[in-house]
Amino acid sequence: VEGTGPPVRESVEFTRIVAFTDGVFAIAITLLVLSLDVPGDLRGADLHAFLVDAWPQFFAYFLSFAVIGRFWISHHALFSLFHGFDRPLMVLNLVYLSLIVLIPFPTELLGDFGDRSDPVVLYAAVVGTAALLTARLVRDGLRRGLVLPEARGRAERMASGVVTPAVIFYVSIPVAVVNPLAGQLVWLVLLLQWVPGRLRHRP
Amino acid sequence: VEGTGPPVRESVEFTRIVAFTDGVFAIAITLLVLSLDVPGDLRGADLHAFLVDAWPQFFAYFLSFAVIGRFWISHHALFSLFHGFDRPLMVLNLVYLSLIVLIPFPTELLGDFGDRSDPVVLYAAVVGTAALLTARLVRDGLRRGLVLPEARGRAERMASGVVTPAVIFYVSIPVAVVNPLAGQLVWLVLLLQWVPGRLRHRP
Amino acid sequence: VEGTGPPVRESVEFTRIVAFTDGVFAIAITLLVLSLDVPGDLRGADLHAFLVDAWPQFFAYFLSFAVIGRFWISHHALFSLFHGFDRPLMVLNLVYLSLIVLIPFPTELLGDFGDRSDPVVLYAAVVGTAALLTARLVRDGLRRGLVLPEARGRAERMASGVVTPAVIFYVSIPVAVVNPLAGQLVWLVLLLQWVPGRLRHRP
Amino acid sequence: VEGTGPPVRESVEFTRIVAFTDGVFAIAITLLVLSLDVPGDLRGADLHAFLVDAWPQFFAYFLSFAVIGRFWISHHALFSLFHGFDRPLMVLNLVYLSLIVLIPFPTELLGDFGDRSDPVVLYAAVVGTAALLTARLVRDGLRRGLVLPEARGRAERMASGVVTPAVIFYVSIPVAVVNPLAGQLVWLVLLLQWVPGRLRHRP
Repeated sequence: VEGTGPPVRESVEFTRIVAFTDGVFAIAITLLVLSLDVPGDLRGADLHAFLVDAWPQFFAYFLSFAVIGRFWISHHALFSLFHGFDRPLMVLNLVYLSLIVLIPFPTELLGDFGDRSDPVVLYAAVVGTAALLTARLVRDGLRRGLVLPEARGRAERMASGVVTPAVIFYVSIPVAVVNPLAGQLVWLVLLLQWVPGRLRHRP
Repeated sequence: VEGTGPPVRESVEFTRIVAFTDGVFAIAITLLVLSLDVPGDLRGADLHAFLVDAWPQFFAYFLSFAVIGRFWISHHALFSLFHGFDRPLMVLNLVYLSLIVLIPFPTELLGDFGDRSDPVVLYAAVVGTAALLTARLVRDGLRRGLVLPEARGRAERMASGVVTPAVIFYVSIPVAVVNPLAGQLVWLVLLLQWVPGRLRHRP
Repeated sequence: VEGTGPPVRESVEFTRIVAFTDGVFAIAITLLVLSLDVPGDLRGADLHAFLVDAWPQFFAYFLSFAVIGRFWISHHALFSLFHGFDRPLMVLNLVYLSLIVLIPFPTELLGDFGDRSDPVVLYAAVVGTAALLTARLVRDGLRRGLVLPEARGRAERMASGVVTPAVIFYVSIPVAVVNPLAGQLVWLVLLLQWVPGRLRHRP
Repeated sequence: VEGTGPPVRESVEFTRIVAFTDGVFAIAITLLVLSLDVPGDLRGADLHAFLVDAWPQFFAYFLSFAVIGRFWISHHALFSLFHGFDRPLMVLNLVYLSLIVLIPFPTELLGDFGDRSDPVVLYAAVVGTAALLTARLVRDGLRRGLVLPEARGRAERMASGVVTPAVIFYVSIPVAVVNPLAGQLVWLVLLLQWVPGRLRHRP
């Protein structure tokens, strides 16, 4: 909107981008509670049955809280590798955030219709693509010299490490088309990767 | 997502964690207003009766505002004792936040169905568990040497002090199963604890 | 929750309180857009009539945006007078914020039922009380020595200046009981106070 | 509300205004996900058809994410030109934000009724006016000496550069009255302006 600026790379204030990104993460994770909706016509007598039947919604809530929280921790680690940000990376960061912000929508569908293919496919596509964009952010930062020299090794490991969860979520898509529950079980592979990591960290 | 980092404890930027946590608290407390919902089919003639009957919803709104506000003040005091944060504590902090963010949901149920057991039980379970996790955050910080040396005494007092409200909320659960109103009256014990503290503070 | 602290006044980190308060203001003002609700069963053919009839909702949206924005500017000026914050002032600030956060609710009622007394009364009560609490925040800060010495004069003028809008909103309550429209017209007196101030500022 | 201050220009704390503005942008962009609403009475069997038919809502979501993100980048660049902010500019900034915050509302209408004139007209009016107010913010800052001396040239280019998108959105209004789809196609001219800019930036 602001016309043609100089062709040289402008270094926008880093802290504002970080604060904006953290704000978007904080709001997206908090909006998850709105997926736990109380039906307007719920009667007291049906409340207990409603809450018992609502366990898939609680499952979806905590799953997405963990997923967005995990992305935030990653993004946090990612930004600690950078010494600057240019305009194309700001745009890529916004594209990435447009998927993070979308997560409450497939979460609500997953909570309501977890036995159907569509929500599982949509959820896996959004989360898998966001994981891929994390790798893209790191790779673009490396290529444009925005990564701290001493952190290039860690940045490359991060860009590689994020491929596994992206692949797992993409693999779950065709599985979910055949069987929605099986598609969700594929996601558990991520836990298997996470648990040994946790055991290794605790001596 | 970012692969296997070094096994040594990494000190992530403290201020971003604080800002994210404050953001989540600020959003969760503000979303409480959405529990005061105007029915879509409300007619002007029924408005006065609707507002008069809505007092349990206002009670639930102000109760939860006080509860989340109280947790925020505690969390604020808690973070002032720490000189750093490691990955496991970040994860525990997210688990803690997942309960804080959930509070608007039992708040809406409590406002709509305060005469039933389920909302009181759910509310007490969420708030009591969040109080316990506060103690856990402090204890983990102490064990891992993340608490400022000069603040260890205050940290231990905080971890002990948080047990009383947790016990009160857990005790209210079986009481609420028998009588929902009595369960909520148990919570008033917290006020009894708070008021003498206030009097003591004002000489 | 964190047990009995020392009876001496503790100076909690000022910046976190400011950031939390700003966050709550930013969220409350943004949630106003949710009061502009699209009916779920709206048909394309009725869209134009819906939007034409929705002007009271747009009026309520912009009114509340101005009101919350005005409170934020005041709170901003208020905090610039303080050099510290103690626990009782944090609690009072939360009580104040619980009214700011409430504003989207009477806003929605005012947009839907501006021709009825109840929304006007509720709106005026919430906004008038929030204005009074602004004065109370300043007075408590002055009494407890939390105001910067060089700013005591400005603080006293601010505490007096806020009484006028509070009185105007309280006066509009009995007027609105008799005639809702007349109650809202009383609020225009604030504009009369505001405009000459603007003219005086521009030489 | 805080009474008559001194007639001299007061320099309110810049960082708080920036943080508040960023917060409002972050919340407005995140609330866009609420425009993707799952109908309360949706049945599992109709889910697939619902999602296929929901593509205009996804289009509206990503369009508005891009629009608000673009405004944020502009506002970010704008603030980097200023060395201070006075009260009238704070008020103008709030007026500007009241339009940014409104965007989720025409977005929801556009997603539901993109084949009708009203949503296209409303959307273009809100976005075009917000673009004009960006120019106004820059011009007022220049006139009042709030722009950094070394940035005056860039500020003037920004104020001129923002006129083109404003004109495009305003021109689309009469076009949309005749044909809603044609009105939306006018917006694509912005992409034509954007793409050569991108090519020029990449040598």
